[in-house]
Amino acid sequence: MGGGGAGANGGGSAAGARVPVPVPPARPFLDTFRANLKETFFPDDPFRSVVRERGAARRTLAALRYFFPFLEWAPAYTLGAFRADLVAGITIASLAIPQGISYAKLANLPPILGLYSSFVPPLVYALMGSSRDLAVGTVAVASLLIGSMLGSEVSPTENPALYLHLALTATFFAGVFQASLGLLRLGFIVDFLSHATIVGFMGGAATVVCLQQLKGILGLEHFTTSTDVVSVMDSVFSQTHQWRWESVLLGSGFLFFLLVTRFISKRRPKLFWISAAAPLTSVILGSVLVYLTHAENHGIQVIGYLKKGLNPPSVTSLQFSPPYMMLALKTGIITGVIALAEGIAVGRSFAMFKNYNIDGNKEMIAIGTMNIVGSFTSCYLTTGPFSRSAVNYNAGCKTAMSNVVMSLAVMLTLLFLTPLFHYTPLVVLSAIIISAMLGLIDYQGAIHLWQVDKVDFCVCMGAYLGVVFGSVEIGLGVAVSISILRVMLFIARPRTTMLGNVPNTMIYRRMDQYTTAQTVPGVLVLRIDAPIYFTNASYLRERISRWIDEEEERTQGKGEMGVQYVVLDMGAVGSIDTSGTSMLDELKKTLERRGMQIVLANPGSEIMKKLDSSKVLELIGHEWIFPTVGEAVSSCDYVLHSHKPGVVMDSAAAHESMV
Amino acid sequence: MGGGGAGANGGGSAAGARVPVPVPPARPFLDTFRANLKETFFPDDPFRSVVRERGAARRTLAALRYFFPFLEWAPAYTLGAFRADLVAGITIASLAIPQGISYAKLANLPPILGLYSSFVPPLVYALMGSSRDLAVGTVAVASLLIGSMLGSEVSPTENPALYLHLALTATFFAGVFQASLGLLRLGFIVDFLSHATIVGFMGGAATVVCLQQLKGILGLEHFTTSTDVVSVMDSVFSQTHQWRWESVLLGSGFLFFLLVTRFISKRRPKLFWISAAAPLTSVILGSVLVYLTHAENHGIQVIGYLKKGLNPPSVTSLQFSPPYMMLALKTGIITGVIALAEGIAVGRSFAMFKNYNIDGNKEMIAIGTMNIVGSFTSCYLTTGPFSRSAVNYNAGCKTAMSNVVMSLAVMLTLLFLTPLFHYTPLVVLSAIIISAMLGLIDYQGAIHLWQVDKVDFCVCMGAYLGVVFGSVEIGLGVAVSISILRVMLFIARPRTTMLGNVPNTMIYRRMDQYTTAQTVPGVLVLRIDAPIYFTNASYLRERISRWIDEEEERTQGKGEMGVQYVVLDMGAVGSIDTSGTSMLDELKKTLERRGMQIVLANPGSEIMKKLDSSKVLELIGHEWIFPTVGEAVSSCDYVLHSHKPGVVMDSAAAHESMV
Repeated sequence: MGGGGAGANGGGSAAGARVPVPVPPARPFLDTFRANLKETFFPDDPFRSVVRERGAARRTLAALRYFFPFLEWAPAYTLGAFRADLVAGITIASLAIPQGISYAKLANLPPILGLYSSFVPPLVYALMGSSRDLAVGTVAVASLLIGSMLGSEVSPTENPALYLHLALTATFFAGVFQASLGLLRLGFIVDFLSHATIVGFMGGAATVVCLQQLKGILGLEHFTTSTDVVSVMDSVFSQTHQWRWESVLLGSGFLFFLLVTRFISKRRPKLFWISAAAPLTSVILGSVLVYLTHAENHGIQVIGYLKKGLNPPSVTSLQFSPPYMMLALKTGIITGVIALAEGIAVGRSFAMFKNYNIDGNKEMIAIGTMNIVGSFTSCYLTTGPFSRSAVNYNAGCKTAMSNVVMSLAVMLTLLFLTPLFHYTPLVVLSAIIISAMLGLIDYQGAIHLWQVDKVDFCVCMGAYLGVVFGSVEIGLGVAVSISILRVMLFIARPRTTMLGNVPNTMIYRRMDQYTTAQTVPGVLVLRIDAPIYFTNASYLRERISRWIDEEEERTQGKGEMGVQYVVLDMGAVGSIDTSGTSMLDELKKTLERRGMQIVLANPGSEIMKKLDSSKVLELIGHEWIFPTVGEAVSSCDYVLHSHKPGVVMDSAAAHESMV
Repeated sequence: MGGGGAGANGGGSAAGARVPVPVPPARPFLDTFRANLKETFFPDDPFRSVVRERGAARRTLAALRYFFPFLEWAPAYTLGAFRADLVAGITIASLAIPQGISYAKLANLPPILGLYSSFVPPLVYALMGSSRDLAVGTVAVASLLIGSMLGSEVSPTENPALYLHLALTATFFAGVFQASLGLLRLGFIVDFLSHATIVGFMGGAATVVCLQQLKGILGLEHFTTSTDVVSVMDSVFSQTHQWRWESVLLGSGFLFFLLVTRFISKRRPKLFWISAAAPLTSVILGSVLVYLTHAENHGIQVIGYLKKGLNPPSVTSLQFSPPYMMLALKTGIITGVIALAEGIAVGRSFAMFKNYNIDGNKEMIAIGTMNIVGSFTSCYLTTGPFSRSAVNYNAGCKTAMSNVVMSLAVMLTLLFLTPLFHYTPLVVLSAIIISAMLGLIDYQGAIHLWQVDKVDFCVCMGAYLGVVFGSVEIGLGVAVSISILRVMLFIARPRTTMLGNVPNTMIYRRMDQYTTAQTVPGVLVLRIDAPIYFTNASYLRERISRWIDEEEERTQGKGEMGVQYVVLDMGAVGSIDTSGTSMLDELKKTLERRGMQIVLANPGSEIMKKLDSSKVLELIGHEWIFPTVGEAVSSCDYVLHSHKPGVVMDSAAAHESMV
């Protein structure tokens, strides 16, 4: 904290008038409680705009505007903005149709559900979402997760109706869970999925999804339902005689085409439309090819019949009775969190580019509502996928209206164009999925993690290997456990460092960081780098004793003055609990028995309050608490050198460097 | 951190030469890893005394001395010390015999096991334990826990042999678990049971144990096996016609006697022997009374036959096969942790009084070994109970020899005196348990928690109510969850505060704590009070934006200069992960778009290293990183006021106070 020389307080006059460390006045318990509650659940002060208005009508309007952000932009919507949104909307629709069909296959659901899911949810999001760039749709990872979690208990081929109903029920629960998180202001739970977790998890999921596509590319009819790499490889290489060269050829061709277009668009962002239009082009080309060559009779599997017409209602299909409700609930919660994390992260990233704010909790309510409404209208889990939103952003979307345009385009497809997909080969869908997934394997991100933070790299690899060799749930569990363990370890083993005087100043800094810093004879200055909690109180007591022992040994060896004062720099101690105050209490008594004085420097207001109410302040003595380390050491030194002010500087300078 | 005026650096010459914030040199990954490992698992450097010795023989001796602390005190043992230990040993034996029998009843085990358990384990502890005051024996809470956990699956009345074998097996597992914790240097796991948890948990367990004694006091023959208050009250009041007035009278009389002696000893610590001898006196008086009046025929239940002779071996009784092994394992681990927590806490408390050190990990190995050996010789779970150790301490024990004396006294009892306990009434044992338990309900401790820390109070009450209304496991689970949640919340919602200049100094302090601190126009100084981790990165980004918005609003309202510089005081940021560095990266870019400059003050070495490797240091610019807030603000101010050095002081003083 603060420091640097000068002013009336300068000159090392230690015993002179000094700024006391104030004890904050006691506040009523309910006040503190309310303030803490507000800081925990409403840190962004979301209702500021509502409260600021006067009159019930204006306030209602402000509240409506809060929950339905389209009320803010719709009145000022211009033709120019609409033109931009129209282009963006049509572009993402051309991506949404093949992707929707592909991901539905990934979830073992009827392909038409992918189209349904790109019709209703985007409309809901356009009303309630606060992102201008998010393009709503289904996502690969959540689709895969639904497939593997539900598929482990209900077979999608033997009992397709029940499987479909459970997927819709899981979507309903996911929506309820997402909206509740937002309404209960628990959005910060999503923050517990760290960036490192997401990099590893997404990479692992993308790897798993790509491996699953080997089924389509190789034209296999039977395939394992497991997602781990061992089962998949076993399944692939145990039936090499079933591989179809026609399928492999077609798949590789389209994959190459898609990767080339991706490469071009990445090199020249202005040509974004090339990669955006490539999937639909592939679908059309592939369908025409199959139609002309009758390849469906030569081992190329096709989508087949797709029902014409809009989403049928599905409220009555939801399963709210045992034994399958718990399965749907579990699937819903896990996939809901994953989908939410992706949607929020994508929304935030693009909001940052365009410099506007996304309210995480509001987004959760919007995404949750769109899934609840979706589950009533035959849609499965949707969120804001990164790939589609990036295309939307690059296509120049201005508002959520681009989602409406996409939704209408999908509606037209549903009403009139579904027969055209009859001959679309599955292998093209596999190629589309693989090309989308390869972008999710962020190996550069992993390298960056290794360079910056080894623990984060472990978290990332834990998630990746867990997903690839175990299952999606295992990978997630491993990563979250390592992340939380890391936080707990930080608190359980806080760093303590010895501070030294930076020559010719009154500043005290870490001796291992500032090599010029020097010790002051008779005074040991220690800095504690974490809140003092029950998890570290006894560690700190032991560690401080060891610092003192080591310093005593060192000084004895050199025949210097032993430790007389132990100055604890509390600047970085953000909080303290009763175990912490007891620790200080004990430390004071132990040091007293060894003939040493404990001195506290720069305790914060919360620390002062706790020290006061636990009577430790009284025990240590208010005169031994200083606002800065400099003043604390000066006072000690003043006493040590029989009332010769200004001695600190000289002795510190004379004292040999410990570097 | 450091601060206060003076030296060559004084005078506010902001653009002058300044101490740069060094980036620590990169260390090989393995070095850092090894250092972290050492700090995590060997913070107390336990083998220092061994490594310091030269020669294999001397080192072996030092290692032996490490594992068998009696080698240290035994050679210098004096007759005077023995006299003190003899008195203390006989005193605790007089307490151990009735307590041992009572607690064995509490665990639904044969009473004789209580005596066995006071014979072998104390001998093992005397060899390996490092505490001079701990008196070994069984404890009420662990006994109750064994009774309720094993009793829920195996009935002690219908299948007493299996029940006994499971209790011994659980003791074995508890010992193995305790010793492993010590050997693996995982002693800090015990620290996760905070002081508040233990106060609540002990209070709850004591309440439950007292309620269980209603069976003995009321002379009931049938009683619930549940421990929660609702079941117990139901059991008591559903059979009021079974209450025996003889039993109630006898029990109340002895309870009154015991409480009076406790009161006397508490008032006059020199008369400690009155309360120490009271239980044995009660047992003798009660037995004589029953023998003379033949009260055993009038509804007073007695202990009955106790087998003469020393502990029979029990290695072959241990159950290592399903289905009951898992039950024993679970019981062993939970009771082992509870017993360990009590033993370590008691050992540490008395060591503090006498000013010597207890090595937690070494204690765990000692306690674990004593339980493993105990389980081979018909002893059930032992540790260092508080009541017995306090008596030992008050009786003036000097070394662990008092445990040996107690052990020999119990041995003599086992060999010759067991028939004397035939007529001992159970109601007296109940009175002894109640009087011991009342001391464990630390209501003053709970009040202290309420005054100092409300969260700790919640943890305490959670543990208490969980134990009383649920079960021991539920209470423990609730308390540990709240404790961990609190730590996670501290990390998820770190405090940020605005700093102001303390007039006439270069010090910057929290404006809500130091009421005289003043803002500097155009510069917003924020302090972050926690490590920047994935759990709080997005919160901090939003919170910092809000601080800036609020400050902009305030200054606009007054027509003052808007925010030009945002100085982040990183002094209290102990650590940062990749989510944190990304946050700073984004913050820098966002502020740049708003025309503001981000400035970092006093980042620690770890932060500097991470900023450097993540290229954020480059992005922000090394010239915008200062060792103190004072220098950072001076530099900003210097630029703001067109190169007029020394302006900070004046403008700050002139600026109206924001208090």
